This record gives sequence, C-alpha cells and structure tokens, in this order.
Amino acid sequence: MSQFDIIHKDAAGRIGKLTTPHGVVETPTVMPVINPNIQTIKPSEMKDFGAEILITNSYIIYRKDELREKALKDGLHALLDYDGPIMTDSGSFQLSVYGEVEVSNAEIIDFQQKIGTDIGVPLDIPTHPDVTYEKAKEDMDITIERLKEARGLVKEGGMLLAGPVQGATYKDLREECARELSDVGFDVYPFGAVVPLMEAYRYADLVDVIASAKKGLDPVAPVHLFGAGHPMMFALAVALGCDLFDSAAYALYAKDRRYITSRGTYHIDKLKYLPCSCPVCMAHTAEELKKAHNCTELLARHNLYVTFEEMREVKQAIWEGNLLELVEQRCRSHPRMLEALKQMTNYSSWLEECDPSSKSTFFYCGPESAKRPEVLHFTKQLERLTIKGSVLIRPYPTKKDKEYDNVMVFKPPFGSYPQDLAEVYPFNAEVVRTPDYESLETAFLNTIKLIELNPEANYTFLMRESFEHPLVEKLAEMDNVTVVPPKSD
Amino acid sequence: MSQFDIIHKDAAGRIGKLTTPHGVVETPTVMPVINPNIQTIKPSEMKDFGAEILITNSYIIYRKDELREKALKDGLHALLDYDGPIMTDSGSFQLSVYGEVEVSNAEIIDFQQKIGTDIGVPLDIPTHPDVTYEKAKEDMDITIERLKEARGLVKEGGMLLAGPVQGATYKDLREECARELSDVGFDVYPFGAVVPLMEAYRYADLVDVIASAKKGLDPVAPVHLFGAGHPMMFALAVALGCDLFDSAAYALYAKDRRYITSRGTYHIDKLKYLPCSCPVCMAHTAEELKKAHNCTELLARHNLYVTFEEMREVKQAIWEGNLLELVEQRCRSHPRMLEALKQMTNYSSWLEECDPSSKSTFFYCGPESAKRPEVLHFTKQLERLTIKGSVLIRPYPTKKDKEYDNVMVFKPPFGSYPQDLAEVYPFNAEVVRTPDYESLETAFLNTIKLIELNPEANYTFLMRESFEHPLVEKLAEMDNVTVVPPKSD
Ligand SMILES: [Mg+2]
Ligand SMILES: [Mg+2]
Ligand SMILES: [Zn+2]
Ligand SMILES: [Zn+2]
Repeated sequence: MSQFDIIHKDAAGRIGKLTTPHGVVETPTVMPVINPNIQTIKPSEMKDFGAEILITNSYIIYRKDELREKALKDGLHALLDYDGPIMTDSGSFQLSVYGEVEVSNAEIIDFQQKIGTDIGVPLDIPTHPDVTYEKAKEDMDITIERLKEARGLVKEGGMLLAGPVQGATYKDLREECARELSDVGFDVYPFGAVVPLMEAYRYADLVDVIASAKKGLDPVAPVHLFGAGHPMMFALAVALGCDLFDSAAYALYAKDRRYITSRGTYHIDKLKYLPCSCPVCMAHTAEELKKAHNCTELLARHNLYVTFEEMREVKQAIWEGNLLELVEQRCRSHPRMLEALKQMTNYSSWLEECDPSSKSTFFYCGPESAKRPEVLHFTKQLERLTIKGSVLIRPYPTKKDKEYDNVMVFKPPFGSYPQDLAEVYPFNAEVVRTPDYESLETAFLNTIKLIELNPEANYTFLMRESFEHPLVEKLAEMDNVTVVPPKSD
Repeated sequence: MSQFDIIHKDAAGRIGKLTTPHGVVETPTVMPVINPNIQTIKPSEMKDFGAEILITNSYIIYRKDELREKALKDGLHALLDYDGPIMTDSGSFQLSVYGEVEVSNAEIIDFQQKIGTDIGVPLDIPTHPDVTYEKAKEDMDITIERLKEARGLVKEGGMLLAGPVQGATYKDLREECARELSDVGFDVYPFGAVVPLMEAYRYADLVDVIASAKKGLDPVAPVHLFGAGHPMMFALAVALGCDLFDSAAYALYAKDRRYITSRGTYHIDKLKYLPCSCPVCMAHTAEELKKAHNCTELLARHNLYVTFEEMREVKQAIWEGNLLELVEQRCRSHPRMLEALKQMTNYSSWLEECDPSSKSTFFYCGPESAKRPEVLHFTKQLERLTIKGSVLIRPYPTKKDKEYDNVMVFKPPFGSYPQDLAEVYPFNAEVVRTPDYESLETAFLNTIKLIELNPEANYTFLMRESFEHPLVEKLAEMDNVTVVPPKSD
C-alpha cells in the first residue's frame, strides 16, 4: 500500500501527503497532463503554477520509436525534463476511443516500470455510462482481472500502482469493484470513465459514482478522479473524498480559445473584461489577449493559474473547516451543479461519519444546508436529550424564560435545542432571519421528534410569522404543545 | 448635469461612461482612497491595478498647512502626482466621528474648486442608522440646504458636484431626499452613511436604502455608494444601480493584517494557502507573506488586485446579461448577504422595469431565483395569453401531445407557458430537475392564475413526483382541471 497520510479533514475531503518515488505530493492537487509530442507549456515550468505531480501517457511514448527509445534509455523524467513525481496512463483512453490498442496489459505495465513512472496504470476498460448492466459488469470483470495481473507484476516499494474503479453508472458495480480492488490492494484508486458524465453536465450522476465507489474503499485510500480537471467541480469532488485530479483541459480549452474560471468557461471572444489577476490577465486586456499571436499559450497559462488557484481555495476551506460552504457556493455556477449539490445531500449520513466534530461556524447557504451532515448529526443525537417539566421553545430570549423549567432555542434548520448549547458548534450557526421552506421542514420535524421522544414534558412554542409552515399545524395538534401565535406588532 | 452615458444594462446595473474634467471613467468602478498623509501605495501606481479615478479628502489637505499650500499652488493633481480624475470628500466623515469640523460648507466647496477637484462633495451630515425619525429628518433638511448652497457656488462646466443622499434607514426619507436633490440637479449622487450598516453586516437594510434612494432619482443619474469597498458586495450593489464605490478597505484591512477575497475576509494568520493568482500571491506562500517585513504593503496590493478583479467580473456579467446569477452566487458568502438577496427579491418589480428584455440564459440558483424579475415579468404577462379548447400541461413532450388543441410546458419557477415559447428567453432557462418549494410555489400560482384567466378551456396537468406541493390540491379542485398522477415507474 502507498504511504498516504491524512493531515486534515472536512466532510469527506482531506489534505493528505502521498509519498511517491520522486517525492511527496500534497493532496488534493491536480496533475497537468503532458502530451509527450506537443508541449504548450514545458514540464519544467509546471512547478511555477503550483503543480506537484504531472501525468502523461505511457502508451503514446511506447508507440513512437524516438520517444520509447529515449524513455527506455534515459528514463521518463529525463524525457520530460522534470524531476518530480510523474503518473502515466496506459492507453485505456485510446482503447475507449478506438476500440483497441497495440499493447497488452502486461506489456504496458512492464514498460511503465522500466521507464521509471511514479504511478503506473494497468490497461483497464473505461465503460461508457449508457451501456447495459451486463456489459458494464463484463467490462468490470475484465478490468479486475487485468488489475490483479498488474498487481502480480509490480513489486511493492517501487512504482506505485493505480487500480481504476469501473462500473459505469451502476452504483452497486462501482461499490463492488472498489471493494474487490481494495482486497487486492492498490496504491491509488482512480475512478474511471467519468469524463462522459462531465461532458454531458451529468454532475448528479457523478456524485453517485464517487459516493458509491468511495463506499467500497478504505476511507484512507487516495482517490484520483480520472479526467476531471475543471476547477468548477473541485470543491464538490474533494468534499466527496477525491484527492487527485488531472487537467488536459488547460491546454485543450486553450486550443479552443476557451478561458477557464472557477465559475465556468468563457469563449475568449465573448470576454470584454478579464475576471482574473493572474500574470497573463494583469499583462493583457481582453482585446489584447484575443489578438495575441500566442493566444493559445497565454490562455493555457491563465487556465493553469486559475486551476491551481481554485485548488488552493479548496485546501484553505478544508483547513478552516468550511469546505461545505464553498461547495454550496460553487454549485451555483450551473443548475446541473446545483442538482449535484442536491444529490450530495442524499449522502449526508456518510459525510456525517467522515466529518470531524468541531469546525468553523456553520453558514446557512440555502435549502441544501438544511440537509448538511451537521444538521443530520443533531437529528441523530435527539435521542440523547432528556427533557422534563415545562419547556419554552422560542427563537430569542424573552422575559418569560424564567417562568419555565427548561428553555430551548428554536433555530432552523436545526430545530429545538437546549439554550445552554446556543454558543456551541454547530448551533452558533449564522442563519437567515426568514428561513426557507426546507429549513423550516427540518427544524419542525426535529422538534416534533424531540417532543415525541419526551412525551411527559409540556411545551410552549413561541410562533413567529417567518416560521409559517404546514408542520406548525401538526405541532399545534400535539396534546402537550401550546403554540403561541406571533404578536401583531 | 454630468455627462453620464449608459452603454450596457443588466437588472438595475449598468456599464457607463462618466465624463470628468480629467477624463472619462468607465463605471462601475471603485475609487482607491488616498490618504494625503500616508500612502501605502503611490497614486501614480493605481492605474496598474485598474483604477480609473481616485478619491481623497479635501478636509485633511485643508487643515494641514503644508498640504494646503501645495494644493493651492500646484493643484490637487500635482499634490498627489496623479493626472486622472480625482474626487474629494469634504470632512463630513470627520463631522460624523468628532461631531464638528473646522470648516464651513461654503469654505470647503470653495477650496475643492480652487485645488482642481474633479468631483467635489459639500459638507453633508451623515446620519447614523439608529437615530429617531425626527433626527434623521432634521439632519436631512440641513444636508439639503447645504447642498443647495453648494449648487449655487459651483458653476456647471467645471468641477462636478456630488449631492449625497441621506435619510438614515428611513426609506421614505431616502426617497424624498433623492427626489429633492434630483430637482436641484447634481452630477453624482453618493448614498451616504451606509458604512455603519455594512460594519454591522446589515446588508438587507443596505438593500432597502439603495432601492429607496434610487426610486427618488432619475434612473440615468450616476450613483456612488459612499464608503463601500468590499468586493463581496459589488455584484449586489451594482445590480441595484450603484456605479461608483470607494475603497479605503484595501489599506485599512492590510494594516490589520486582513486579506480580502470576493468571498469574504481572512486574517492572514489564518491563511495556510493563498486563494489568489495576483502578482503578490504568485510570488509568496502564505507563510512568506505573513513573515514579510513589508506585509502591510503586500496585503494592500493584493487587496487592490482582488478588488478590481471583482469589478471586472461584475462588468463582464453585465456585458453578458448574467449579473443576477453572479449576485446569487456572491450572496452565499455569508448568511447576512443571503438575507440581502432575499430582500432584493422584494424589489423585483422595479428591477423588471429596469431590465432589458433579452439576456443570457436564465440559470436557476435557488429559491430566490423564483422571484427574479424575469419570472415576475412572465406573471405580469399572463393576462395577455388567450387559451381555448383542450389543453395539456406537461413538463416534457409526450405521445399524447397531439390529442390536445393546445400544449403547454410546465417549468418551475415560471409556471405554464405555450410550447412554442420553449426555446425563447427566459423559458429556455436552465433549471433543476427537483425544484425547490418556492420555485414550485411560483409555478403553481402562475398556472392557477392562467387557468382562472382562461376559464373556458379544459386543462389536463401531468403531475410528477418532484412537483409535489400543497397547491397541487388547489389545482386539482378546479372544475376544468384534471391532474393526472405520476406513473409509478
Ligand atoms: Mg464545515
Ligand atoms: Mg440576467
Ligand atoms: Zn488569468
Ligand atoms: Zn493575491
């Protein structure tokens, strides 16, 4: 197994240190894809942008005499003129595009070892999302066989070996595949064949794929979201437990005259202003950039700067414990991303288990915040609260507080909790004065559950106009609850 | 009146060109505040960050012999060594802090003219948000008198004259003040005394102040949100019709070791990673920045870079017609900002009137999107639709479409509209598959209204599980409506 040390966590996201033969990589990070034939930006420059590890394609090197010979003679690192960690892909992408490749799994594994790759990848089969279950299973079984073969060929201690998790969009297959590979033991687990999902903006399906595959893995295993390099989805993918990304996008988009931002992509011809402070954007106006003779190179540089900038933003958020707030913000870049956020709330129970207990102040960002792990955690903890006597439930301190045996705070999306906890995480949350429907829904459901768990107590609930919700009626109908209507002032 | 040409619009935001004696300024823009005594960054460098106009304080210059004499002799532009437009404040800030100043309104206006200011400000009275109505009115009346006096002293054609709108948090006073000043005629309208609101995170109140004051002004008058310089609220304030901002924050925050981002402010000691690609952040790690001997200056530079970066982002959004999407994203930086967004939806009717008709694709970002001007516009247009015969209302094309006289699309948050409009703005919106409660609320209310307006037709509504909402029952109870339950598949 690889040495992967997790040094900080938030949600299922983490800052980690992955040890490779050519040095330690701090994750999450993105690996710029180097085309061994055409280099828009030299590998030796990549550290200046923030790169800690590169990725290139061993199959392209293998197929071209000149490249193969130099790689075999001087090594991969000399070929690319880069002394840090390098991962190599195996030709599976070419396999998925052309249906065949001129190399076997054993040959490409052997070649990767010989040229001194830091992380090698077997010749797995990337299965397209829309195939039948049977086809996905069949591909997956072949992939697992090849990975076992590769594991037999690669001794521990040298090249790290990646075990790509396949299974298309079948959640049970993704989980099964991850579990079987875990049993074999790989150093890095790429989640494969997700590019078609991203190209079709199927981010909600991507959430399912990541969460299912993660479920089958040891939580401390490093995960590579293979083919994902757009900064818009880094926060989301990291929060779900992805550690490594790779970006060919920086160069491919540039060739297409596309300008990447963490909020989405612009065609350069539609840019009137450059919303960035990178060295490229500070040295050019939008007009100048469009007309520059080296526009492609300049765009590639800008794209790399913002890609690493977003990764630093994500890492800072993990460090502070507000990664989920960043996810909620970034997921408003596109309605398909918002769907992914909503999908992510279905995994809150899992995220709650990953999540450390004390964090930065909880910020309410919208209906999805009502389903965050911290809220779910409170719902689960309700059974531990024992409440007796007369209870006042109100949003803010009142003069009548002292007339009751117990005073509880009502604060959506949490619900009702003892006043003593008001300054304690997560109840010290910053929320909005006029809660969304979904926020009230969770708060009232939790309050009703709490009352049902403690039926002997008598409750007085101070209603406010901003708390109107169909569940108030249900609350009012309970025998031991009095709902006091809002004063008209 | 000043020459202010609006060249592009989105919501109440606009890109404009303000002509001043020292050149044309493209708005929205932020004016770096220059302290005549201490200059962390030289005025002559400000253009490199993107500044088009500076602001300094004429009262500070007036009070210090050395500065006053040089300004009177060589002019303000020579004093600051800056050849572009410069606005000067009058001492009203000092008045608000110390209760008095050693200059009269007429004297400071005269002084500003003599030193060659581009935009001068009379000695208005900044009224604190929490004063009584009577006090606010009294201050406002004095302010209006002084502004009239100033208007009499400043001839058209030279220095532009600002007419600060006061009135504390009383919406009627803000509107009245703006209206009275409009009648007198000023070149720029600062909205004054909003800093205490921003310091207390009272962004929802700030929305009220801006919208009320705007209501009293000619829509084409240039507006300066006096004292507002944090990039987090640029998108919101610009969308409400503010054109000029000023930032002392870049330097003041730096002195406090605070690092500005468009998502909020960090204390530098809490930063482990620098989420920015500006020249400062690309040349330093967080650790290096913290320990730099010139940390204050470096932070001030970074703060300026990101301030102008956000303004370019806002301008690009206006240019493309997706400013409201940017507002919805930025308002998730803090729950108080989210409250401001919710408050802004109360002004959708006004925004709808400002808003040009065809824009970039509408992106649904959350419950507040259901109250956007484009949605309200459709609600208002419902009366123009005439519908007869048998009508099928469904989310997507079905085989049964051809059995009906009319087919309508049901798409939250809009509601139901003729199929022919499906590809037309704003109905070509990108929305989420599982609509929020508030989105369904608007959609069903609009659908019910449409049916009530066309009672002779017969409607079949194809229900979906994701459309569950209390209003479905109301819809089903209508005599001429059949709700078809979702197929269980
Ligand atoms: Mg958190
Ligand atoms: Mg728009
Ligand atoms: Zn850039
Ligand atoms: Zn910076």
